[in-house]
Amino acid sequence: MLPAKICSEFTAILPAERFYTDPVDCYAYSYDNTRKIFPPDAVAFPLDSEEVQRLLGLCNKHSIAVTARGRGTGTAGGSLPEQGGLVLSLERMRKMIAIDAPNRVIVAQPGVLNEEVQRAARPYGLFWPPDPSSAAYSSIGGNLATSAGGPHAIKYGTTRDNVLGMKAVTANGALLETGCYTSKGVVGYDLTRLLIGSEGTLAVIVEATLKLVPLPAAVGGVTAFYRDVTSCAKAVSAIMAQPIWPSALEFLDTGALVLLRGRYPDMLPADARAMLMIEVDGSAHSIAADSEAMIAACGNSGLLHAKAVADAAALWAARKALSPLLRDIAPKKINEDIVVPVSRLADLLEGLAALSERHGVANVNFGHAGNGNIHVNLLVDPHNVEQMRQAEACLDQVFDLVLALNGTLSGEHGVGSEKRAFIAREINPATLSLMKAIKRTFDPNNILNPGKLFPA
Amino acid sequence: MLPAKICSEFTAILPAERFYTDPVDCYAYSYDNTRKIFPPDAVAFPLDSEEVQRLLGLCNKHSIAVTARGRGTGTAGGSLPEQGGLVLSLERMRKMIAIDAPNRVIVAQPGVLNEEVQRAARPYGLFWPPDPSSAAYSSIGGNLATSAGGPHAIKYGTTRDNVLGMKAVTANGALLETGCYTSKGVVGYDLTRLLIGSEGTLAVIVEATLKLVPLPAAVGGVTAFYRDVTSCAKAVSAIMAQPIWPSALEFLDTGALVLLRGRYPDMLPADARAMLMIEVDGSAHSIAADSEAMIAACGNSGLLHAKAVADAAALWAARKALSPLLRDIAPKKINEDIVVPVSRLADLLEGLAALSERHGVANVNFGHAGNGNIHVNLLVDPHNVEQMRQAEACLDQVFDLVLALNGTLSGEHGVGSEKRAFIAREINPATLSLMKAIKRTFDPNNILNPGKLFPA
Repeated sequence: MLPAKICSEFTAILPAERFYTDPVDCYAYSYDNTRKIFPPDAVAFPLDSEEVQRLLGLCNKHSIAVTARGRGTGTAGGSLPEQGGLVLSLERMRKMIAIDAPNRVIVAQPGVLNEEVQRAARPYGLFWPPDPSSAAYSSIGGNLATSAGGPHAIKYGTTRDNVLGMKAVTANGALLETGCYTSKGVVGYDLTRLLIGSEGTLAVIVEATLKLVPLPAAVGGVTAFYRDVTSCAKAVSAIMAQPIWPSALEFLDTGALVLLRGRYPDMLPADARAMLMIEVDGSAHSIAADSEAMIAACGNSGLLHAKAVADAAALWAARKALSPLLRDIAPKKINEDIVVPVSRLADLLEGLAALSERHGVANVNFGHAGNGNIHVNLLVDPHNVEQMRQAEACLDQVFDLVLALNGTLSGEHGVGSEKRAFIAREINPATLSLMKAIKRTFDPNNILNPGKLFPA
Repeated sequence: MLPAKICSEFTAILPAERFYTDPVDCYAYSYDNTRKIFPPDAVAFPLDSEEVQRLLGLCNKHSIAVTARGRGTGTAGGSLPEQGGLVLSLERMRKMIAIDAPNRVIVAQPGVLNEEVQRAARPYGLFWPPDPSSAAYSSIGGNLATSAGGPHAIKYGTTRDNVLGMKAVTANGALLETGCYTSKGVVGYDLTRLLIGSEGTLAVIVEATLKLVPLPAAVGGVTAFYRDVTSCAKAVSAIMAQPIWPSALEFLDTGALVLLRGRYPDMLPADARAMLMIEVDGSAHSIAADSEAMIAACGNSGLLHAKAVADAAALWAARKALSPLLRDIAPKKINEDIVVPVSRLADLLEGLAALSERHGVANVNFGHAGNGNIHVNLLVDPHNVEQMRQAEACLDQVFDLVLALNGTLSGEHGVGSEKRAFIAREINPATLSLMKAIKRTFDPNNILNPGKLFPA
């Protein structure tokens, strides 16, 4: 609990209805999608950057830990107030500051939801590319803090590629203005990208200038079923080696198809053990030809059949049906987010099968195959101590496998608390040491999301 | 001159043919495209990252200034060894380490030329998007150091958007490994983008993992002529407000057309005072429809005529013809690289005309209008002291105009020495102070390109 004297300093900045200290009120700010719980001592709801500056100045003076929070949909623990202190909830900073279609820009406060940005852009034939599965309820502040991606990153990039500039407050309350308002700009260091994906450890984002791109005139694609996972992985590599760019390239493995069959017995061909959804977008003229090119590229001896699908709803039917089934098993899965070069997907999936077998832990794998970004889910019973031990040993070897294949431990979820024990396996000591020095430069008292990203 | 004892430490690392100290040998490394001359004390030509590490370790020990240099084609003074010391020429680090088409990646040493990357990628139907006008002879190390762009940045981004990771050596000789090999990755801070555009002030890039993208199957476009510059600028805004993305959108103003007419009297319509080249790319099916859409979007009361052009050579004829004419007048121009939001282009061009008139300094303006990135050229006689004084006063007001229009002082050239006096006009004190702190974190002895970017 914060001492009463310090609380009174907070309430000099914010009215009581925007500063919670009652543990019951604070409870909703103690967890995220990791389902771990760390109650904060207080929660503050600033409305503008000046309030954020004053709050951070106060926390810095008293060395109070500050965890910035969007909508708490992260899966890596980035928004968990592990050390207590203050949760700085940006959810009430919801002003859309500018919708500037001629310049393809939206300027918004961090609490604006991803879906609200899309709704504002759509009438102008524009959209903002980051499309995490939480897009309907996650905020752009959280999207920026994690460099959120999603299925269309393969063609349109992740958050990092679609932000022009921002305002952010450092630990001492100074207001940074990074980047620019234009689609080009090279004046000074690129602090915009340094802050994107820094998970609230360097500064608190209080405004973002988002780069919009044109909505495609038409969307279509291809579904393809394979008799084995390896053939499917090889098809991904073949698709990505030819010169038409899919707008999404999603993969479902045998385990994912088993889940689907359990609920929808007739949805899938009986002998399919892996599936691709290959989306193409562009002009109405190009969709048919591009779909044909995808059908040609995805063919190999393991292909059962591939067919063009005229609309996005049909294309995504299986993937959408999978989501609620995954939520059903959520308490019983360890959900990872690894990436390998697409040419190594077959090696990854074969290695995962071997590790699954060795440790007696079933898994379900699916995801953004065009980026090599696979959501690996280990299915476990959390109450089975031995199985959990096996799952952890398995995960440890999954990470080694990924790095041996020249991959990375996280494609879009981030490090947070969940993966910090492994960061030194991926990042060499000199680079990690420099990252920590940058952290100290921004936040000498270590108040911003302390303990995250780096192992103690 | 370096003391003999220190020179012997260098020659313990490199053979004599890769370490120059004779002023005659060093002279070619004393200038860049600014045409300013600062002779270095020595030039070193490392072949691999280990040599760079040893060289930087030595320079750091003796506090010797180090200016990393690609091919010296920069226009902002970034590669000028203003304080003498060592020029670290990366031009002999020319290994193409991997051409990995299935993963759409090329890994290369910094001395590989941009054009060599394109040649290696082309047989696979791929290219690397950064396309500065120096692409035939500039190196990727220099492209990264400046975040080089070019006409196709409007659709494909600049260098920043097309690099996955890199190896770089810090001032103390430590080897950083940033980013990853995959098209997605969010583990740790984004040091890749922090180093891109940092103009050799933070670390020396010794390897880059470049992201390739598919070559378009077809290219076409539209040329459009206007009776006045304002109508032309308004057309740019209209083109960028509709949902088809040009792959290039280049602008030539009245002064540029005058230059062209001087050499090619019949090339242009007599009454044209501004011109657009609107390139579209995509599938063969989409080019005609997209060109029609561009013709519709670029029409307004000031349009003289617009016509679809079937091939890229015809589309770019006027722009290509302009380049040598600009080189002819190069010693007599001050060349800027400012950016404004596309909706403010008309305001910019009207403001430039007023400033030109007020100061009696003619100008020629052209460039990447789709990004709002205009090359402003003030035509001067360097021997006319009063005119040079007027030109400087004019430039000062051009920068104020650009910032008042929510623009930036440089879209692709960088700050270097040429624009450092103005950086504090664009970047606020808190942000600038943090940038300087980051510089100290990477380079505590201030040996890496000292004095660049920031005013003393």
